[in-house]
Amino acid sequence: MAAEPIRISDSDDLRIAAFRSIRERDLVGRQGRFVAEGTVVLRMLASAHGGASGFRAEAILVLENRLGGLAEILARFPASVPVYVADRAVFNAIAGFDMHRGVLAIGRREEAADAAALIASLPADSLVLAACGISNHDNMGALFRNAAAFGADAVLLDETCCDPLYRKAIRVSVGAVLSVPFARGGDANTLLGRLAEAGFVIWALSPRGETSIARIEASPRLALVAGTEGEGLPPAILSRFHTARIPQRPGLDSLNVATASGIALYQMALLGGRVQ
Amino acid sequence: MAAEPIRISDSDDLRIAAFRSIRERDLVGRQGRFVAEGTVVLRMLASAHGGASGFRAEAILVLENRLGGLAEILARFPASVPVYVADRAVFNAIAGFDMHRGVLAIGRREEAADAAALIASLPADSLVLAACGISNHDNMGALFRNAAAFGADAVLLDETCCDPLYRKAIRVSVGAVLSVPFARGGDANTLLGRLAEAGFVIWALSPRGETSIARIEASPRLALVAGTEGEGLPPAILSRFHTARIPQRPGLDSLNVATASGIALYQMALLGGRVQ
Repeated sequence: MAAEPIRISDSDDLRIAAFRSIRERDLVGRQGRFVAEGTVVLRMLASAHGGASGFRAEAILVLENRLGGLAEILARFPASVPVYVADRAVFNAIAGFDMHRGVLAIGRREEAADAAALIASLPADSLVLAACGISNHDNMGALFRNAAAFGADAVLLDETCCDPLYRKAIRVSVGAVLSVPFARGGDANTLLGRLAEAGFVIWALSPRGETSIARIEASPRLALVAGTEGEGLPPAILSRFHTARIPQRPGLDSLNVATASGIALYQMALLGGRVQ
Repeated sequence: MAAEPIRISDSDDLRIAAFRSIRERDLVGRQGRFVAEGTVVLRMLASAHGGASGFRAEAILVLENRLGGLAEILARFPASVPVYVADRAVFNAIAGFDMHRGVLAIGRREEAADAAALIASLPADSLVLAACGISNHDNMGALFRNAAAFGADAVLLDETCCDPLYRKAIRVSVGAVLSVPFARGGDANTLLGRLAEAGFVIWALSPRGETSIARIEASPRLALVAGTEGEGLPPAILSRFHTARIPQRPGLDSLNVATASGIALYQMALLGGRVQ
C-alpha cells in the first residue's frame, strides 16, 4: 500500500531536497544513492525494492498529471516510501531541467554486492557478463539491457568501469541495472580468475579473437568479457583466456561494444538454451 | 595531391564561413551539405570523394598540431579541395565549441541516390537493410555502422527516417554513412514492394516476430526491415512480409534497435557467407 501523496508547492521544500538539481549532481558520489527516472525504471525499482540485491526506494516525486497513470506501480511500494507530487513548474524547478518523463525516484543500495559472494551464489548453469574499462554510461546501460535480454545471471565490473547506478546508465539500461545482479570493483584479472576457479569457461571478446563467436562450444558456465572500444581488452587477459571475435568485414572499426556484446550474449544464450 | 594549407587567423574569415557554429547549424537543411568530423570519418570521405555515391569534399579545416598526423589522408584529396589550418583558439571560435578531434570537413552529396536506381544496381547476392521511422541520430549512425560491419550492400530509409548525413549520425556510424550506398525517401510500403519485386526475401524485425532470427532460411537476396523501438513497425508491413524476432527473455523491453539490427544482420551475414 503506497503512501498518501504529499503535495509540494515550493521547490526549496526541504522534504524534496534529494531531488534538487539532479542532473548536476549526477556525477558526484552519493553514498549508494541513485536516481531512477521514468515509468519503466520505476517499475523495476518497485520489483527490486527490499529484495536480495539490497535496493530500496527512499522517495518518489511525481508530476501531478502522471499520478493516475502511475497508481498501479506506486501501490507496489510500502507506505514508508513517501510520494511527493508537484505541478510542472515546481517539478522542473526541483529537477533543474525539463524532465518530461515526470517521474523521479531516489533509490539506495543498502550494501554493495561483493564479487566473490555473487559468484558463489550463481546457479550451476550460468551466463555471466564481465566488463573491463567501460567508462561511457550509455555503453554501460546498454550492456545491462543486453544482459537482461539474454538472461545473464550476473554482471561483473572491474574497478575501471563507471558506476552503472548513474542516472543515465540506469535509464539506458531500461532499469536492467536494478534487475541483473552485479558487483563492481577489483582488478579484472582477479575477477576473471575467480570465475575460472568457479568453473566458468571464459571468452574474451576482441576484434582479433581466435574463434568466431558463432563457433564457440557450449558449457554449463559461460562468461563473456567485454572491453573498451578504443583500446580493447588488456593483453594479459587476451593471452590468459579463450578469445572470440564477432565475424565481420575486414578493414573497419570494430562494432560498438554494446552491439558486439549483444551479439555475443545472443549467441551464448542460444547455445545454452536460455532463449529460443 | 593535396592543396597547400591556408592559415586562418580570424574566425570571421569568409573563406571558412561554412565551418562556423557547426553544432547549431547541424539541425537545419544544408542543401546536400554535411559535416565530417574526426580522422576516421575524414578517411572515409577521402575514399568516397568523387566516387559513384556522389560525395565530394568541399573544404577541410584542421587544427595546426594535427596537420602532420593527417598528411597521408589529406594527400588523397585533390588540390581543388582547400585545406585550412588554425590554432586551437581560432579553431574553437570557428566551430563554436571545443572540438577536440581537431578535424572538420564540409562535404556535399551532388545528387541524392534514388531508391529504384539503387535497387537496380544491386548484385545478384545482396543483403539490404531497410529502416522505417528511425528518428534518433545515434540509432541511425549505429544502423550504418552495423550495415558496414556485416557487408550490407545498401541501406534504404523511408521518408520518416532522419537524415543520416547529420553530423552526429555520420560520427556514430564511424563514417559508414559515406561508404554504404543508401537512399532516403518514399513510404516504407512502396520501398519494400520494390525490393520484393526485385526478388528480395523480406524479414521485418519485431519483438513479436513469428520466426526466430536464428532459424530464417538462406536466400541470395535478403532484406531486413528495422523500425522504431517504441512503436515498432506498422501493422501493414508486419502483415505483408515475413516477421523475425530476436529470441530473448520475456517480459522485458525489446533490445535497442541498434543492437537488434546488429544481431539480425550478423545472422543474415553468416547465413549468406558474407562473414566467417
